[in-house]
Amino acid sequence: MHHKIQRRIFEIIELDHPEDIYSKTFKIFIITLIILNIIALIISTVEDIYQQYQTCLDSFEIISVTIFTIEYILRVWSCNIAFGYKHPIWGRIKFIFKPLVIIDLIAILPFYLPLLLPNLIFTRSFRIFRIFRIFKITRYSNTTKLFAQVIKSKQEEIIIAIFTGIILLVTSASLMYFAENEAQPENFPNIPAAMWWGVVTLTTVGYGDIYPITPLGKFLGAIAALIGIGIFALPTGIIGSGLIEEIQKKQALNQGKESIICPHCGKKID
Amino acid sequence: MHHKIQRRIFEIIELDHPEDIYSKTFKIFIITLIILNIIALIISTVEDIYQQYQTCLDSFEIISVTIFTIEYILRVWSCNIAFGYKHPIWGRIKFIFKPLVIIDLIAILPFYLPLLLPNLIFTRSFRIFRIFRIFKITRYSNTTKLFAQVIKSKQEEIIIAIFTGIILLVTSASLMYFAENEAQPENFPNIPAAMWWGVVTLTTVGYGDIYPITPLGKFLGAIAALIGIGIFALPTGIIGSGLIEEIQKKQALNQGKESIICPHCGKKID
Amino acid sequence: MHHKIQRRIFEIIELDHPEDIYSKTFKIFIITLIILNIIALIISTVEDIYQQYQTCLDSFEIISVTIFTIEYILRVWSCNIAFGYKHPIWGRIKFIFKPLVIIDLIAILPFYLPLLLPNLIFTRSFRIFRIFRIFKITRYSNTTKLFAQVIKSKQEEIIIAIFTGIILLVTSASLMYFAENEAQPENFPNIPAAMWWGVVTLTTVGYGDIYPITPLGKFLGAIAALIGIGIFALPTGIIGSGLIEEIQKKQALNQGKESIICPHCGKKID
Amino acid sequence: MHHKIQRRIFEIIELDHPEDIYSKTFKIFIITLIILNIIALIISTVEDIYQQYQTCLDSFEIISVTIFTIEYILRVWSCNIAFGYKHPIWGRIKFIFKPLVIIDLIAILPFYLPLLLPNLIFTRSFRIFRIFRIFKITRYSNTTKLFAQVIKSKQEEIIIAIFTGIILLVTSASLMYFAENEAQPENFPNIPAAMWWGVVTLTTVGYGDIYPITPLGKFLGAIAALIGIGIFALPTGIIGSGLIEEIQKKQALNQGKESIICPHCGKKID
Repeated sequence: MHHKIQRRIFEIIELDHPEDIYSKTFKIFIITLIILNIIALIISTVEDIYQQYQTCLDSFEIISVTIFTIEYILRVWSCNIAFGYKHPIWGRIKFIFKPLVIIDLIAILPFYLPLLLPNLIFTRSFRIFRIFRIFKITRYSNTTKLFAQVIKSKQEEIIIAIFTGIILLVTSASLMYFAENEAQPENFPNIPAAMWWGVVTLTTVGYGDIYPITPLGKFLGAIAALIGIGIFALPTGIIGSGLIEEIQKKQALNQGKESIICPHCGKKID
Repeated sequence: MHHKIQRRIFEIIELDHPEDIYSKTFKIFIITLIILNIIALIISTVEDIYQQYQTCLDSFEIISVTIFTIEYILRVWSCNIAFGYKHPIWGRIKFIFKPLVIIDLIAILPFYLPLLLPNLIFTRSFRIFRIFRIFKITRYSNTTKLFAQVIKSKQEEIIIAIFTGIILLVTSASLMYFAENEAQPENFPNIPAAMWWGVVTLTTVGYGDIYPITPLGKFLGAIAALIGIGIFALPTGIIGSGLIEEIQKKQALNQGKESIICPHCGKKID
Repeated sequence: MHHKIQRRIFEIIELDHPEDIYSKTFKIFIITLIILNIIALIISTVEDIYQQYQTCLDSFEIISVTIFTIEYILRVWSCNIAFGYKHPIWGRIKFIFKPLVIIDLIAILPFYLPLLLPNLIFTRSFRIFRIFRIFKITRYSNTTKLFAQVIKSKQEEIIIAIFTGIILLVTSASLMYFAENEAQPENFPNIPAAMWWGVVTLTTVGYGDIYPITPLGKFLGAIAALIGIGIFALPTGIIGSGLIEEIQKKQALNQGKESIICPHCGKKID
Repeated sequence: MHHKIQRRIFEIIELDHPEDIYSKTFKIFIITLIILNIIALIISTVEDIYQQYQTCLDSFEIISVTIFTIEYILRVWSCNIAFGYKHPIWGRIKFIFKPLVIIDLIAILPFYLPLLLPNLIFTRSFRIFRIFRIFKITRYSNTTKLFAQVIKSKQEEIIIAIFTGIILLVTSASLMYFAENEAQPENFPNIPAAMWWGVVTLTTVGYGDIYPITPLGKFLGAIAALIGIGIFALPTGIIGSGLIEEIQKKQALNQGKESIICPHCGKKID
């Protein structure tokens, strides 16, 4: 009996049978709850709204954490139904350290930590970590998996782009520090500050809080911008084309391998 | 006789026979009128020009609205020539709710609404909705259809890009609010404000009205920019390649299917 | 004899025989002179340099104009060697209106116009039109031709991108004018000013001289940026892929059609 | 015996045998040392850190330079083991002028130069050239080679993009100087200053330190931005697609040439 309930709960919260109406309801419920949590967090930082709806928002937080806690406990409790997690203790410990389960823990921890350690300084700051609840949603999407595949298939291109990007950033930031440090020591006091200039420039964001003013600095900055933006934009192109390829591959698999049939002899040509 | 006129008007304003000189003239006339309306709206917001040509611009607006109103009435009146809109009342009601016909109504409504509801507060503001007349022009272009096809064929890629983009935007805005709120509470008072920073940064616009000043904020901002701009630029690449594909498909169809000739027997394959 | 000189000059300045050493020398001389002219113009706007080297720079300008004038006269004089320009008068008039020959005239006109019309107001300003001498260099490059081919082959994509871009720009500028005009009438006094905001934002330049400050304006600006930058970046992708295609096509032609030879029967496949 | 040591050192520092444990250790050691040097340089420009860890950082610099000097001497000494560098004097001189060996020299020179020329003005500035040690790392990566191949295979596209980019930059800067010089002589004093505007705008960085304020300047700036950003973004697309092609070519070679099997006779084609 006990085992039967455990199995049923496992089916509902972990498996994704399209016919299982309970599993589907649970899934939609959790996704809705996550989205509502994110919206609640965002609007609760707006002072006016928070003061007006404080009770409502705080209650919602308590209810949400309760549900997420029950969900977490049920996941850990029912996990040893799954193959590879059979052992009542070690199976569960192994399960707890799965990335998605760690995210589930992080999603509720910001609530319990101040209770456990009341004299902790960062108490208020922990609230912001509620934002990590958004990553709970990745469980129900194949986006993470798809990006992992894209990164794997374009591994070499990405490593080269990142490697070249780092060299460019460090070199241009150092030279810019050298060129501008004397003219504007408050904006370019050291290389890390110049690296902030480098990121802002090479990503073409260009806030305007820091930019070269000496002729040498402007010349170096122009060269860095002209070369660098190309290198910094490479990953986009690589990931973009990788994503299109990967999805087309998947769609081709779904449709079954399309083969040309020779109309003359009826045999397949690869 | 009455029915004959109705059919002729339907042919002129709804069908696009290349030989029908009246239909062609009507089409060019309406397109010209739309463009002139947009130009008139733009220049009428320039105080000097408006004061000098007030009578002229106001007259042009009245004439335009009259023509667009007649066009709208004729469209609705003649619509039950078309298959599926035969019923004199329900056919017309169904027709009125077609997207392109709704646009036709929106194009003239800003003129009539203040007359109908004179004590309405937003009276003056309604003038700006004249800009929606620009969408009347989409009736004469296959651009909307083409973009719809591109979005459909690249649906999966676009959904993934938007989903990832939203997660990135919300997460980086929340963390940035956490990092900068104390240092500059006027710029980062809440997460929605930080989301404005997020959009301005991740689209690489970078106005410079809001940017991190603390070391932690700059570090998070650099990471967000480096990862985020790639994700935010994905839709461009996806839509761009989809557009090229879709147009090539269309051009291939126009030219007839190109077939491979088997080199061994000289017969066509596919 | 006279005709022989004319033919020789035509060969030297208009034809591009790889063996003709005079033609090659002339070509290199003119290209060098154009580049030096551009450099001279750029540095002559730097007050310090101009005051120090005024005589030198002014002499160089007079020498350059003399050479370009002689070149222009020789081109027009010798042009009726070419097929289609045989008539001594009409052939030359026809020749004068060729785009490249108009550029040759524009290259020298800024020098003569002030002499012809001494009391002209814009005298000083005409100096800047010397910059158009840079377009003389296009005669010696197939870049213009290549871009023309790319634009032709991607005509449909480019028209759609421009059409969508204009609609987006006009619509977002009008809505932004509506949202921000009251809050900052000095920055958004009218729609043309809002269009400057639109171009600066949708191209992601984002100087920071003009940006929304009201919540509605920020919301509209964010939506416009998210949708618009994709549309505004489309032409780059289209022209980029068109350029790669066009050059590959050209290279394939240069190498002769590569055909696979069947190793079993020695016949060509495809 | 002497020759044997020389050969062994050559094997360790120049060859990259995967089984040679000493060579592998040496490689990892040098790469680690380079990375630590870059980090040390970056943090040593932060005043607080430098003052606290001055002895530590200075000692590390001396140790590093010693190791790099020994490495350099060993490389030059052992080089005449390699084919083509056999001659004891000319072989070594030829070796010293190899690009990678010049980088090795530049990596240590900033340390020795102030010792050799103590009354040199730029003494302090030379410190920044330590950043060039980062290029020592390229010896252990095929990135440089890959980019060289990409640039070679896309040579024509890149030359056209750069050529068009320069023409656009010079033309738009000159016209902008013409339009804005009178209105804001401090921002647009001459064409080189306007070229800084051009680079900042056409790369879409847009710091906001310099932008047009006159209607003509804004109009020209908008046109330049709309056309120019497309041209300036071309190299990214070209290099991106070239990089993907080049890596796929390499991967195809690694996997062995994939051959098509003729379905009719079962023999391989190509």
